[in-house]
Amino acid sequence: MDDAPAKGRNGTRTTGVMSAIRARVAGRALGPGDRLPSIRGLAATMGVSPSTVVEAYDRLAAEGLIRARRGSGFYVSPSVMPPLALTDAEPRRDRAVDPFWVSRQSLDADESVLKPGCGWLPPDWMPEDALRRAARALARTDASVLTNYGSTSGSPALRRLLLKRLAEDEIETSVNQLMLTGSGTQATDLICRFLLRPGDTVLVDDPCYFNFRALLRAHQARIISVPYTPSGPDIARFEQVLGSERPRLYITNSALHNPTGATMSLQTAHRLLTAAAAHDLTIVEDDIFGDFEPERSPRLAALDGLNRVIRIGSFSKTLSASVRCGYIAGRADWIEQLVDLQVATSFGGPSPVATDIIANVLAGGGYRKHMDELRRRLTRTRRDVARKLQALGIEPWLMPRGGFFLWCRLAGRQDATAMARAALEEDVVLAPGNVFSVSQTAQNFMRFNVAHMSEPRIWDVLRRALKAA
Amino acid sequence: MDDAPAKGRNGTRTTGVMSAIRARVAGRALGPGDRLPSIRGLAATMGVSPSTVVEAYDRLAAEGLIRARRGSGFYVSPSVMPPLALTDAEPRRDRAVDPFWVSRQSLDADESVLKPGCGWLPPDWMPEDALRRAARALARTDASVLTNYGSTSGSPALRRLLLKRLAEDEIETSVNQLMLTGSGTQATDLICRFLLRPGDTVLVDDPCYFNFRALLRAHQARIISVPYTPSGPDIARFEQVLGSERPRLYITNSALHNPTGATMSLQTAHRLLTAAAAHDLTIVEDDIFGDFEPERSPRLAALDGLNRVIRIGSFSKTLSASVRCGYIAGRADWIEQLVDLQVATSFGGPSPVATDIIANVLAGGGYRKHMDELRRRLTRTRRDVARKLQALGIEPWLMPRGGFFLWCRLAGRQDATAMARAALEEDVVLAPGNVFSVSQTAQNFMRFNVAHMSEPRIWDVLRRALKAA
Repeated sequence: MDDAPAKGRNGTRTTGVMSAIRARVAGRALGPGDRLPSIRGLAATMGVSPSTVVEAYDRLAAEGLIRARRGSGFYVSPSVMPPLALTDAEPRRDRAVDPFWVSRQSLDADESVLKPGCGWLPPDWMPEDALRRAARALARTDASVLTNYGSTSGSPALRRLLLKRLAEDEIETSVNQLMLTGSGTQATDLICRFLLRPGDTVLVDDPCYFNFRALLRAHQARIISVPYTPSGPDIARFEQVLGSERPRLYITNSALHNPTGATMSLQTAHRLLTAAAAHDLTIVEDDIFGDFEPERSPRLAALDGLNRVIRIGSFSKTLSASVRCGYIAGRADWIEQLVDLQVATSFGGPSPVATDIIANVLAGGGYRKHMDELRRRLTRTRRDVARKLQALGIEPWLMPRGGFFLWCRLAGRQDATAMARAALEEDVVLAPGNVFSVSQTAQNFMRFNVAHMSEPRIWDVLRRALKAA
Repeated sequence: MDDAPAKGRNGTRTTGVMSAIRARVAGRALGPGDRLPSIRGLAATMGVSPSTVVEAYDRLAAEGLIRARRGSGFYVSPSVMPPLALTDAEPRRDRAVDPFWVSRQSLDADESVLKPGCGWLPPDWMPEDALRRAARALARTDASVLTNYGSTSGSPALRRLLLKRLAEDEIETSVNQLMLTGSGTQATDLICRFLLRPGDTVLVDDPCYFNFRALLRAHQARIISVPYTPSGPDIARFEQVLGSERPRLYITNSALHNPTGATMSLQTAHRLLTAAAAHDLTIVEDDIFGDFEPERSPRLAALDGLNRVIRIGSFSKTLSASVRCGYIAGRADWIEQLVDLQVATSFGGPSPVATDIIANVLAGGGYRKHMDELRRRLTRTRRDVARKLQALGIEPWLMPRGGFFLWCRLAGRQDATAMARAALEEDVVLAPGNVFSVSQTAQNFMRFNVAHMSEPRIWDVLRRALKAA
């Protein structure tokens, strides 16, 4: 910003100082509650007399932009900020390739658009028959399930089912440590609301799930990252960053990490928890892909006993993304506060209609069989797609033990963002590396969803997009 | 807080200063980012030397509680705050009668508990058959509706139906000014996230819906209120408060206000909007009870043309509180940002399963008939319950034109909170006046839900509770 006094319509030095301060507030160089430069300091910087700055500050205070605090100077008023804009508003196709890009393009795409960049399975991979049976059962259930708000922690029947499933991961917990939420994302959001204040530092993996970045922007958090390796975060860097940056929270997937498909090793998990204890770090472990593992890997929540680890999850990847429901397992005293926070912000947890459908599908014996089939089908599909990608010079960074993502390096050092833009012109949504990268160092990586790559057209588009990039 | 140096275990003046600062942070007298007292000022206040304060500040900085900013003093670190506690954790029955009290007691009550304090209709007042038909239709719908995330703004079919209904309220708007949300509360919450920063001032009615108070606590807003009259907020006070307090936002119900059942007059609406324009106030108009009106009253959103008024609503009171869905109608540029915010915090809008059910019920011709019947039944029930309450010396503040609430004065000047506590001991949840009152001036008011008062036991309990209070 140029601090020289502006020669505005009335040409005075006072309005010049006022414009300079307004510009700093508009550009967020000065936030609500921030202290304004000292009168002498700004007078010297702008080459005006202190009395000019005093007059400018008084007039800005009369306008309400700033406030004087007795004996301590001037501060930006708490209420002057423009609304929270997470992104610039842009026409759809031309929008910036930012952490919102993949969500927008894939959630709002019509049927004709192919989506190897999306983060969910196609309908014909989901337990359609079980869901239809659950909908028919819903039509016959108690009127209160169809019409009433649910309880503040969510369906007791579904919570009991979840406790059993958590026990299979060696997470022994009780019903007062478990609450249901509107979705997995809402679970993370509630925890962030509970633990974070604007400006707090949060640590994520690099790369990480792009919506962690979008969510943390909404919380006005300072986001830092540590490189992810095939066995979890780079633990030496992790320990170092905890000391130097003192993050309040670390958000990660421990099993089948998004986007890499990597799984944290037991040794990394242990060192990570030791470092977390030394620096009083809280960890959100998002286990959304856990059921895709061929055999269970160790969970941070199991090692830690839900002390400083908060476990979240949902059914969006395995059962239905339409029937929205997530959960949080954590310290009982935190859960109690999180339940209140959910009442205040959503008036209760997930829809009883949703939890009825999910409990129905989970309680019917078909869920295990569905997951067994899904894992087998995905093993084959990952292998086939990896081979076809390799033929194009697109190399998986590792072969995941499970799940539907392949995190790949473009061998030709093409720019993945340019490639995604080119593919979108042909109605194919890709997920370019940098939407997952806080450090913006994944420009020649791409995440592929192997379950969305059976259409031959995708491969033609990929070939052309590789050339275009 | 006592500023005298504490004589702690090591008895030094330095630790005394450190304790004093820690206590101010713990008690939130100093928030994250706040500037600490000047070294000379605190030294004088506490009767210690400036070098003692310097040492205390240096040690607190080494601990991470505070941070030095070059040339501008010491500030509380952004990340030191304890988690956001909206309420004190207490055992269920003994919990404080605060804005969460009615929600907790009525949402988590089991079947044996009677709830004349709750804010929804009993299952047998809801369109049960239509909901069962919609569930059966859901069982036959496209697999993608059952399994996929929805679009970021929510079901186009339901939005088209809503546009028609808004037009009946003389709110002419377009599809890019309308988004669906997870619930009406989530709609308000998204708007608050978008427009508010901690410390911002928000104006509500006195009395107002208790969860507005809970929600605004979660946003760390400064809450102020203006008395509500039978024709809307006391408009002279409203105008005065806008000038003196400069609230950022006003949240209200314009038709069948909760809890009073009053409806804003056209003249009040006009003066209110004129004052809002003069002070650049944004208004959230929650129209959740609008369909209960016998004939439509003027809406702020209609007068204003969705310029500074944001209209929200849901189907929880008329159709189902279990099938969760709300909506926001507002300025197109704000809706675009709110959609992003909803992606970041919920990964999309309401469940497609939910919007499919609601669109199905609304599109079937039965909804109008259901509402006609509901209004007739409520007119009779309001009259009958009012008569029985009057016999106990409980006097409706006004007879509402519609809806299921009666806001009543306890003629004997009993304390409504004590009465609610006594009733809860007998498994009856009441809604005492002060949970609705920012100014805590409604201690001898009570909100009754007439649809939940047919059980004779309620009247026995009321009689005993009146005596106990």
